[in-house]
Amino acid sequence: MSSSAIGVFDSGLGGLTVLKELRAAMPNESFVYLGDVARLPYGTKSSAVVTRYAKSCARFFDPHETKLMVVACNTATAMALPALKTAEKSEVFGVIAPGVRAARQVTRKKKVLVLATPSTVRSGAYLQEFKLQDPSISVQQLACPLLVPLAEEGWFNHSATAEVIRHYLSSLRTWDFDTVLLGCTHYPLLQDSFRKVFPEEIAVVHGGQELGKEIRDYLMASGLRNPLSVPGTLRFCATDEIPASLPIVSSLFGADIPFETVDISV
Amino acid sequence: MSSSAIGVFDSGLGGLTVLKELRAAMPNESFVYLGDVARLPYGTKSSAVVTRYAKSCARFFDPHETKLMVVACNTATAMALPALKTAEKSEVFGVIAPGVRAARQVTRKKKVLVLATPSTVRSGAYLQEFKLQDPSISVQQLACPLLVPLAEEGWFNHSATAEVIRHYLSSLRTWDFDTVLLGCTHYPLLQDSFRKVFPEEIAVVHGGQELGKEIRDYLMASGLRNPLSVPGTLRFCATDEIPASLPIVSSLFGADIPFETVDISV
Repeated sequence: MSSSAIGVFDSGLGGLTVLKELRAAMPNESFVYLGDVARLPYGTKSSAVVTRYAKSCARFFDPHETKLMVVACNTATAMALPALKTAEKSEVFGVIAPGVRAARQVTRKKKVLVLATPSTVRSGAYLQEFKLQDPSISVQQLACPLLVPLAEEGWFNHSATAEVIRHYLSSLRTWDFDTVLLGCTHYPLLQDSFRKVFPEEIAVVHGGQELGKEIRDYLMASGLRNPLSVPGTLRFCATDEIPASLPIVSSLFGADIPFETVDISV
Repeated sequence: MSSSAIGVFDSGLGGLTVLKELRAAMPNESFVYLGDVARLPYGTKSSAVVTRYAKSCARFFDPHETKLMVVACNTATAMALPALKTAEKSEVFGVIAPGVRAARQVTRKKKVLVLATPSTVRSGAYLQEFKLQDPSISVQQLACPLLVPLAEEGWFNHSATAEVIRHYLSSLRTWDFDTVLLGCTHYPLLQDSFRKVFPEEIAVVHGGQELGKEIRDYLMASGLRNPLSVPGTLRFCATDEIPASLPIVSSLFGADIPFETVDISV
């Protein structure tokens, strides 16, 4: 139903950066967000485990109340998107294809560095998607396992975060990329730390805006756009307790919206 | 049965530091280790979630094959030990009381700083245990959420790890403690980083050896000691895939013992 909400899930709070872009693109749509913080992080876990978790997150959204679903987590997109597309009745969108579109639009040298979780890197999903969209772009991937815990702890612009990023980069052989694609939805929270580490001429991008456009177009084409012209609602759920007042939420959404704790373990 | 194994579980690999001490104290006992890496970390999660996870770990050990159980995780001990003691048929040992004993033995000023996960700190379990064992010792606690991911990533002696520790300490008001109690079984893996940060005159202790003594005494007293004089066996299990060759395992146990992947989610 066109007035139904859009379901968005992530392993934790990183997907809120995606939700922010979606809300900016579609202010009169309603959203239900689910952060699977009880099992966070996903990015250091295996394909089998991440797929099991993603499926249980997807089951949380009632198909009668949710018109489409967004996997706002790169690891879950990389590992479970095909399985979710098969299993779910509603349309399912991931974050990898939009990220690659965003990088394609800015890279002049056609050299893109993808930063992602170990599980996303291992999956090869970004390499596949670049090959599909533009095989002339050369891509290197770098796994950054500690960035999700740093983002979840709120160390967005901390000297230790910059040092950890520098350490990961030191393993990269010299390579004149001009674009860094943030291949994890937690990483845009660390934008200030990335900007400290990368010189100004290097673009640091993520797929949030592209995903917003893609979903807006889909809703238009399929007649599922919310006909109401009033602002949509936001509902935040998490699989474990979240502090009542969370700086990320107020900084991204301009208001302190409390999280409901939900149990999806059964 | 006296020839049965001792079950040991932790959220991840930190409990291996406990297992090492147990094996040193009781070389002819057999051990089954379970690391719940699929749901790691515990220390940033709520009491309800950690208790649920700890109970499902405990159910993994067959009471016919396990003569006692060790909760080799401070967070699970702090939050779930009483519940496990009630629910389990075999004796259950935690890591908090032995840690407090270890600190008591070395502190001269009777001032102990406890480093632990946010969940352990919140539980107040260390404060309670110090009060019980020696109310004249004054205790401060410091939550160090990023140390578990740093240890799991193997950044045992890394400049970023030292910087993170220094950052946590900076929130402490000046206080002339002489003993640091590592209140998380992952932290002994970071011993080199702690030694970089704390001056030499400060003792950095954990409860591993004390726990070894406690269990050895219990086995003697209850007639459950393994009568065989041959070395006991080690079996390693984890709830997600673990790389076949793990530096922590070979450095702690002198051999590359592969992990079996087990599913305890149901």
